[in-house]
Amino acid sequence: MSHNTFGHLFRVTTWGESHGPALGCVIDGCPPGIRFTLPELQAWLDKRKPGQSRFVTQRREDDLVKVLSGVMLDADGETLITTGTPVSMMIENTDQRSKDYSEIAKSYRPGHADYTYDVKYGIRDYRGGGRSSARETAARVAAGGLARKVVPGLLVRGALVQIGKHKINRNNWDWNEVGNNPFFCPDPAMVPVWEGYLDSIRKAGSSVGAVVEVIAEGVPAGIGAPIYAKLDQDIASSLMSINAVKGVEIGNGFGAAEITGEENADEMRMGNDGNPIFLSNHAGGILGGISTGQPVIARFAIKPTSSILTERQSIDSDGKNVDIRTKGRHDPCVGIRAVPIGEAMLACTIADHYLRDRGQTGRLK
Amino acid sequence: MSHNTFGHLFRVTTWGESHGPALGCVIDGCPPGIRFTLPELQAWLDKRKPGQSRFVTQRREDDLVKVLSGVMLDADGETLITTGTPVSMMIENTDQRSKDYSEIAKSYRPGHADYTYDVKYGIRDYRGGGRSSARETAARVAAGGLARKVVPGLLVRGALVQIGKHKINRNNWDWNEVGNNPFFCPDPAMVPVWEGYLDSIRKAGSSVGAVVEVIAEGVPAGIGAPIYAKLDQDIASSLMSINAVKGVEIGNGFGAAEITGEENADEMRMGNDGNPIFLSNHAGGILGGISTGQPVIARFAIKPTSSILTERQSIDSDGKNVDIRTKGRHDPCVGIRAVPIGEAMLACTIADHYLRDRGQTGRLK
Amino acid sequence: MSHNTFGHLFRVTTWGESHGPALGCVIDGCPPGIRFTLPELQAWLDKRKPGQSRFVTQRREDDLVKVLSGVMLDADGETLITTGTPVSMMIENTDQRSKDYSEIAKSYRPGHADYTYDVKYGIRDYRGGGRSSARETAARVAAGGLARKVVPGLLVRGALVQIGKHKINRNNWDWNEVGNNPFFCPDPAMVPVWEGYLDSIRKAGSSVGAVVEVIAEGVPAGIGAPIYAKLDQDIASSLMSINAVKGVEIGNGFGAAEITGEENADEMRMGNDGNPIFLSNHAGGILGGISTGQPVIARFAIKPTSSILTERQSIDSDGKNVDIRTKGRHDPCVGIRAVPIGEAMLACTIADHYLRDRGQTGRLK
Amino acid sequence: MSHNTFGHLFRVTTWGESHGPALGCVIDGCPPGIRFTLPELQAWLDKRKPGQSRFVTQRREDDLVKVLSGVMLDADGETLITTGTPVSMMIENTDQRSKDYSEIAKSYRPGHADYTYDVKYGIRDYRGGGRSSARETAARVAAGGLARKVVPGLLVRGALVQIGKHKINRNNWDWNEVGNNPFFCPDPAMVPVWEGYLDSIRKAGSSVGAVVEVIAEGVPAGIGAPIYAKLDQDIASSLMSINAVKGVEIGNGFGAAEITGEENADEMRMGNDGNPIFLSNHAGGILGGISTGQPVIARFAIKPTSSILTERQSIDSDGKNVDIRTKGRHDPCVGIRAVPIGEAMLACTIADHYLRDRGQTGRLK
Repeated sequence: MSHNTFGHLFRVTTWGESHGPALGCVIDGCPPGIRFTLPELQAWLDKRKPGQSRFVTQRREDDLVKVLSGVMLDADGETLITTGTPVSMMIENTDQRSKDYSEIAKSYRPGHADYTYDVKYGIRDYRGGGRSSARETAARVAAGGLARKVVPGLLVRGALVQIGKHKINRNNWDWNEVGNNPFFCPDPAMVPVWEGYLDSIRKAGSSVGAVVEVIAEGVPAGIGAPIYAKLDQDIASSLMSINAVKGVEIGNGFGAAEITGEENADEMRMGNDGNPIFLSNHAGGILGGISTGQPVIARFAIKPTSSILTERQSIDSDGKNVDIRTKGRHDPCVGIRAVPIGEAMLACTIADHYLRDRGQTGRLK
Repeated sequence: MSHNTFGHLFRVTTWGESHGPALGCVIDGCPPGIRFTLPELQAWLDKRKPGQSRFVTQRREDDLVKVLSGVMLDADGETLITTGTPVSMMIENTDQRSKDYSEIAKSYRPGHADYTYDVKYGIRDYRGGGRSSARETAARVAAGGLARKVVPGLLVRGALVQIGKHKINRNNWDWNEVGNNPFFCPDPAMVPVWEGYLDSIRKAGSSVGAVVEVIAEGVPAGIGAPIYAKLDQDIASSLMSINAVKGVEIGNGFGAAEITGEENADEMRMGNDGNPIFLSNHAGGILGGISTGQPVIARFAIKPTSSILTERQSIDSDGKNVDIRTKGRHDPCVGIRAVPIGEAMLACTIADHYLRDRGQTGRLK
Repeated sequence: MSHNTFGHLFRVTTWGESHGPALGCVIDGCPPGIRFTLPELQAWLDKRKPGQSRFVTQRREDDLVKVLSGVMLDADGETLITTGTPVSMMIENTDQRSKDYSEIAKSYRPGHADYTYDVKYGIRDYRGGGRSSARETAARVAAGGLARKVVPGLLVRGALVQIGKHKINRNNWDWNEVGNNPFFCPDPAMVPVWEGYLDSIRKAGSSVGAVVEVIAEGVPAGIGAPIYAKLDQDIASSLMSINAVKGVEIGNGFGAAEITGEENADEMRMGNDGNPIFLSNHAGGILGGISTGQPVIARFAIKPTSSILTERQSIDSDGKNVDIRTKGRHDPCVGIRAVPIGEAMLACTIADHYLRDRGQTGRLK
Repeated sequence: MSHNTFGHLFRVTTWGESHGPALGCVIDGCPPGIRFTLPELQAWLDKRKPGQSRFVTQRREDDLVKVLSGVMLDADGETLITTGTPVSMMIENTDQRSKDYSEIAKSYRPGHADYTYDVKYGIRDYRGGGRSSARETAARVAAGGLARKVVPGLLVRGALVQIGKHKINRNNWDWNEVGNNPFFCPDPAMVPVWEGYLDSIRKAGSSVGAVVEVIAEGVPAGIGAPIYAKLDQDIASSLMSINAVKGVEIGNGFGAAEITGEENADEMRMGNDGNPIFLSNHAGGILGGISTGQPVIARFAIKPTSSILTERQSIDSDGKNVDIRTKGRHDPCVGIRAVPIGEAMLACTIADHYLRDRGQTGRLK
């Protein structure tokens, strides 16, 4: 029962706003003996950080992560080893420009949580979006960096598969391409299309939505549970907890609604090595809430950034009608930076279920 | 940390398999003083129960719900009043035909959880699907019947909006129509189309997917939380926990990926009564994880029933290749009976968040 | 966050009142493959059930436990095997004498929860104490019966060590004696003293308090956690959750306040078998919240039954002063029947921590 | 399911070791609008900090608390107001003397958690006790400072009532005296006795146990729950989570075992103001797990500090027998500094139950 925690055995609590001194997370329940280095961890944060191309916000944040507890330094002077106690990570906020917030302090920006915060809490940290700031996700990415180490052999990767109406051609999918463009796009043919389209969006002070796909390989068969701890359910919850996400699907997702049982069945044969082989993966690696051993595949839809330059009608906290434009350094497509965030959430969810399965069944090492 | 529980303050634990003596749920944390009658509760279960048309499974289950604890009988001899202690509800299984399970006891049906159960637990109740049986959802519907009473003025309704590729025309939406056809279809023009299509599916021993939409009206503004207890996140989790669900979306959902910030903004004006008016509801009633006071709108995609008459390739628990057809009394489109289940899950989630908000802020009565 | 659940991975939810149709529990998270028989389970319930001597309440309840879910019957037709899904157990209430509750329906019995229930819930099931009925503990004992099987080699036993001011002589402790007298007394010399004393209490319509000691042997070293999941903390919580318990201590408990660090230290030497030997066990088998491998020892104090024949001053729900005597079939010393309950709670707590350790560290099988 | 979290709606997660850069806590679920100042918070920490008399450890830690998130600064430039988002507090470690840990890095100090940590985690932060360091309790005290503000009218106070065999005379109890001596002793006649006794203990390099009593006034009647969320149960859990605590009791506690139902009954009369009056408080303010509105009274026993100068037998991590003396700056009686810690834990527990009651019943504002 936590508003700012996710996971059960691999349990992540995040805290902080973009305009306070720092933000961070506490990871409770991490197994002891997990080895990692700060540069490894930082690399994940660097994937998410703003200012890396003209297609994302130009804010400059170093997003340097510090590990404050729960580790010992190995004899090599570099490797950190988890001790089984809470791992506290902190990222200090450095780019807090002094700014005039007087307008948005009172006005409710359409599509933002301004109105709902005020109704709920009666008080709102209007500086930089408060808890809803995209900066909060830096803490998730840090946690994900550790989660990736918890499950032996786990590989979690993500890619952007759609911006606006422009979808990639899945036949062109090339993981090596993902790091070669500013979009985490796996289809080289789509990169120039997105470049042109997003430039026009950006120049118009507009924004657009996107779809991210995240895939986990090396997930052992058998994690998850049949009912209210389904692996797909917890993935849906994790991904939907990312700001601006409006939809989540597993495997063929909404496409499953359109097909027949014959088309949807993932048939099986025994492999030569004595392991089962699935002849397809419509299920996205999960049957009855439990992993099959195939890649776990999820997609999520991100709405367009609500901060746009076009004037929109709204009200303020005094109940007056106002017209509002959101100036500032915003992402024309927040979906781009959502890729490493989605990866992190998927990694944390799988790590959690790995430990939960180990607790109940004891079959995994 | 429960595999068979959902919710935090309105907390529902379900138990039971379709082929044991009974199944049921325990609702912990229900406020005291909630008044309901058994017939009211039973009415929700009757909406879900099988055998009501040729388009759903022909199994006959009375699904009679008993309330075993947590209530006192009012002086009227009919109204039950919750006492604030756990409400235990039980539904006895009555249609347990003796049947030869020897084939499916060993074979893994494609699309079913047979293989994943065996990997995880090393033991599997192969009779009727075990915990993955659709019968488990009867307990959810019972819990939902109580949840509907927890939030004053709450109205939760659902409808089937797509079967296979056949989508309703939303301009024809008529809530009064939903109860007049065997599909919970709100578009009278679509009913004959679905009838013809599902008859062909049914006769072919095939199955098809569907999309359900659930809508909650009367949700007070301000429930939910900004990050890991977002109202939409918990709705996604609740709906994805229903068997066969492969995708969930809120408001315009995956459609949000295709549009711009201008198109997506729900503008606001002050109403004459001093309350804000939203000029649209792309957000599905939730901003920043917190309800806006508008209707909360969610959709979920259901895959086609995996039990089909066409032979499919698979393996058995001895590692041999087998070819398998699933005989029996199955739903050609499980999406139909998912409508009351989706309503129940939405009602439970909103009731839970209503209590959570009351706990933290004390602003709701 | 459950009012009626305890445990995290071995998670027990109980429900029911003494005057409804039944009571029971749902155990979620039990490992699959645990084997037990109904008679084994029933034996634990029989230890707790009333009416077995003149020193406990003369109510007659058979306390027959039914297992409704989560198990499969082994080929021997007798052994039940857990499947990893929720184990629902139910005990039907059979001795519901029709009785005139009009007096206690309104009056607040001193020492009972009547007043506090009415303040909290605004409604109260006055028949038989509602949720505070000692009958609720039957469900705990059933859960404990399963918990005992979860940890290989675990042996949990309890004994009554004090009634009123009469304490046993610990030098006389004989486990074989515990089953030979109606008090679970390990000191044969104390049995006649307690007999005489309790007869006088019983005849006077009075009651008296007691102290129970519970001991777990075979607890593997290393379960528990340093801070808020200390094994001793969770044992304290479990035991204090039993009705009428007013104090809990671990190892030398309150006695530790009176001694020095030299006296309190449990010194260690290496044993010939390569395992450490503790030269004493003041710690009660727990250091820093984590088990040492020594026997885990806890004691709890039970207040005298509040139901006594002597008239006491009180008020009623109309705010009038009343004088009240509690007639009925009450235990002169509820501490006696608390022995199997304390054992059950200790077993459940250890089973839970066993699974939690396995989840986090993976070192236990 | 957290190893380093306590509370449900007022939820405190602590992190950090004494020899890392910092330690702290995250409070999730704090109501919005709670007003406090840093000096108010710091005052609680100053009560707990070491070095304030010759009877506690001479380590010098400033224990300066920083609030990193979850608050806004009021217009007065001094008052912090909670926003309803997580309150992250941090205390930097400043007195980390470089020290030779080579001996204790390998040896298991009797009475410490050295052996159990190594068994459990396979790795141990031997510097300063790791998570078991008394410094961790600074974070609890910080959280308690906020908790005290959550329940209107709540007053939580504590006192030391026993050192070794020397118990205070309760007839001398004077709250004003508690702040006037280095022991938090409420009995002025006992102060010189404890001074002399503890001086001899201190000079001998020995240590001794103690008993602390904590009392909460202004607790509204009706908080808590009948079974597994009893207020007394959660208090027992909270207090037992403090390092070195070996026993907890509520009201007359273990004394309840020695008396009769007549002696134990807290009789009631209606007061002139229309509120009930209890004629005694043997129950310690809690009946059936629910508060009566009387003062909530709890006591806990603290074992003697395990760090003593006298040589004790032990083993090391290589399995060799060793003899070990624990040098360093230790508390001769850790019970003294446990007083503000006990207060903090009681305040947090009551705040949590206050919010839980509000969530379920809505009757409290």
